Amino acid sequence: MLWLAPGLALAANIPSTIRDDAKQLRQRALTESNAYAIVESLVLEAGPRLAGSKGDEAAVAWALLKLEELGFENVRAEDVEVPHWERGETRVEITAPFPHRLVATALGGSFGTDADGIEAPVLMVTNIAELEELPRSRVEGTIVFFNDRMEPTRDASSYSRVVRNRAYGPSAAARLGAVAAITRSAGTSSDRIAHTGSLRYADDAPRIPAAAISNPDANLLERQMQLQDVVTLSLSMTSRHLEPRRSANVIGELRGTDAADEIVLIGAHLDSWDLGQGAVDDGSGVAIAIEAVRQIREAGLRPRRTIRVVLYANEEFGVSGGKAYAEKYSDQVAQHVIGLEADLGPGKVWRFDVRVAAKALPLVEEMHKLIEPLGIARGNNEAYGGADLVAMRDLGMPVLGPRQDASLYFEVHHTVNDTLDKISREGLDQNVATYAVLTYLAAAIEQDFGRLPPPDSE
Amino acid sequence: MLWLAPGLALAANIPSTIRDDAKQLRQRALTESNAYAIVESLVLEAGPRLAGSKGDEAAVAWALLKLEELGFENVRAEDVEVPHWERGETRVEITAPFPHRLVATALGGSFGTDADGIEAPVLMVTNIAELEELPRSRVEGTIVFFNDRMEPTRDASSYSRVVRNRAYGPSAAARLGAVAAITRSAGTSSDRIAHTGSLRYADDAPRIPAAAISNPDANLLERQMQLQDVVTLSLSMTSRHLEPRRSANVIGELRGTDAADEIVLIGAHLDSWDLGQGAVDDGSGVAIAIEAVRQIREAGLRPRRTIRVVLYANEEFGVSGGKAYAEKYSDQVAQHVIGLEADLGPGKVWRFDVRVAAKALPLVEEMHKLIEPLGIARGNNEAYGGADLVAMRDLGMPVLGPRQDASLYFEVHHTVNDTLDKISREGLDQNVATYAVLTYLAAAIEQDFGRLPPPDSE
Repeated sequence: MLWLAPGLALAANIPSTIRDDAKQLRQRALTESNAYAIVESLVLEAGPRLAGSKGDEAAVAWALLKLEELGFENVRAEDVEVPHWERGETRVEITAPFPHRLVATALGGSFGTDADGIEAPVLMVTNIAELEELPRSRVEGTIVFFNDRMEPTRDASSYSRVVRNRAYGPSAAARLGAVAAITRSAGTSSDRIAHTGSLRYADDAPRIPAAAISNPDANLLERQMQLQDVVTLSLSMTSRHLEPRRSANVIGELRGTDAADEIVLIGAHLDSWDLGQGAVDDGSGVAIAIEAVRQIREAGLRPRRTIRVVLYANEEFGVSGGKAYAEKYSDQVAQHVIGLEADLGPGKVWRFDVRVAAKALPLVEEMHKLIEPLGIARGNNEAYGGADLVAMRDLGMPVLGPRQDASLYFEVHHTVNDTLDKISREGLDQNVATYAVLTYLAAAIEQDFGRLPPPDSE
Repeated sequence: MLWLAPGLALAANIPSTIRDDAKQLRQRALTESNAYAIVESLVLEAGPRLAGSKGDEAAVAWALLKLEELGFENVRAEDVEVPHWERGETRVEITAPFPHRLVATALGGSFGTDADGIEAPVLMVTNIAELEELPRSRVEGTIVFFNDRMEPTRDASSYSRVVRNRAYGPSAAARLGAVAAITRSAGTSSDRIAHTGSLRYADDAPRIPAAAISNPDANLLERQMQLQDVVTLSLSMTSRHLEPRRSANVIGELRGTDAADEIVLIGAHLDSWDLGQGAVDDGSGVAIAIEAVRQIREAGLRPRRTIRVVLYANEEFGVSGGKAYAEKYSDQVAQHVIGLEADLGPGKVWRFDVRVAAKALPLVEEMHKLIEPLGIARGNNEAYGGADLVAMRDLGMPVLGPRQDASLYFEVHHTVNDTLDKISREGLDQNVATYAVLTYLAAAIEQDFGRLPPPDSE
């Protein structure tokens, strides 16, 4: 019967013994996952772990011990130089017409103000495009307030939009003569907490101080701007850049059998922002990656390729670990059969994107069938893969991109509210099952996923 | 028909013209309420307004202007001496075995630590009763951690339970030799924000410093206590008491006609804690009280009794305004026919309690019929009435006690999250309708509500 033919052709890719093992693994990982205990241990014992901080150091030590304890092989820390920045204190106040202290925090990497701080009238815009339509005379001497509201989305698309204000807004404002910039928090929470995250100073603009204010405070400022001709703001920040420090990518493996030189890379990042506990971002990813591989081993499976867990240093503040890894292993890129990362929290995976050579797409369809019972749809061939994988991906490594539901992620992401209680165990364990199955399959099969040129743009 | 008789008997209490007016008023207040604009104006123009602060001063000025602007009569500020306390900075850290900085805030009225702070092992208990079962040797030299979780309730009963730890816990701990006390936040929020509120030092115990930690931080500390033999905490606080200041009860009236000397008192408190915007507690009550009376006047009603709006000074930190009012008007208590207050946020009124003489209960039943269409059940004759009314109530003034749904109130109460966006306009306006109808009825009818001895205990 003709209609069966494509299915049969696909089914031939993955041997039935491997498929059966994957199904058992899926069930086992769902019901016997230890992932929550892993992220709890990281949060309790290392706490927040901004690059270069004591928590960062504690996290590297924790990861080495944990991987050893859980029976990983070739456990090691690989040196990474990381920037070292301190948040200090941030004080933002509406000074006129009606004084209000606002809940605010420095954007990651911002320079501080001098001790007297800055006081200036506020110019409110929605985004950079709106700002850049204004004449320099309107912007000069002001504090630019980027006021774009972020709505919850499953695919994180609203974050992609508003994060541009945070990353590039300060330099866009400075280029037109602004003295400081503040942004509405790039998060969906209506709590009075401010969202941090890194800014990127451009080379052609003064490096002005920049902070985020909480959404309720942004509402207050917006309303004052609507009712008053002139609203002035004062900003005082003690953020500062210090000498770079040493951190590390922490690596552990499940060595392969007849193809031990071929690597299936599963990553997450060990660092976090300083404000929260780094439970969701990316403690959950660390737990998913470790536990997925532990489940494979505990199921008695020993795939032919080596599975390598990489817990990256400093994703948040410049992707130091991802870049260092790609540099260190630049002569072994071809041995990296595939990579996948967990760095969008513990929401359930709802779609399976990939970025592989066309020849491997039938294989991907077949892999998808084995995670489809977890409630996962098949997606596109344009997966991002994860920030830590970008450098390797740009050297040709294909990636699998399971996508977590981000609807709740941006309620807590990069804020003080990123705490253990925000992790849904059900979501976490669905991720463990997904990553375990995909990682196992990629390591057990004969086929590869081809090589790819870097994507045109992102 | 016999079954009609009780209804007919009741219907005789309130004349049909007054009942018809009340029905129209109810509808008008629901649809034409301006209450949100009032609370917005208070929040924007005065901001947080802790007793003795600049915001408190601004709020008194705001209230005088607002009541004049809205056409109230006999608008005046009546001097009230208020305590003056500054929160300062609070720093609470787990120092061993795994260091963590906790989100914390001083309990209102707490003394600070000296500059070196305090460091001591933690003793975790659920409540005062559990603490007091321990021998002094177990408590001496520790920081006592009161760890009672608060669940959301419509009737605020869980708050009544846990607030005892906050109010009386520090002295109970000090009596047994503790050097400081911390409490799990007396709120239902899973946000990383700490709940303030006043403590009450006892005369027979050292006045030790006391702070609240957020619920996620309490979870973290609790978990460390479960896993470790000894957990130590450091506490450093710069809270301090300053000289008392002048504030004011702000009063405005709708003068009565043939019984202008008889007073129907409708209250709310003008002050707030310093952390949030005081939008919910008690900006919403201020707006409900003002707007309820404005609606009566705008409807063209001129009841026989005087309706007096009292916006009390310093409810939060010792009920100064309520006490001062009762002292000033101690010779006019009998003229206060009834009192009601709005101080449990903008949740919809779900039950109508009262505290009136038995003879007035049929009248109350009839009043209830006129607010029943707003979704309000009839309650008991043991209404609390509101903190600001307690002193007058204890002198014999009866009270009406519409009860707001408190399920969401304790998500934001006494925290930084008490902001304008947490106010549901629908709830606010249902309150305006309820208070307008009750106030109008009490002022328009011939009957009174009797006099009462103070309640036995509370």
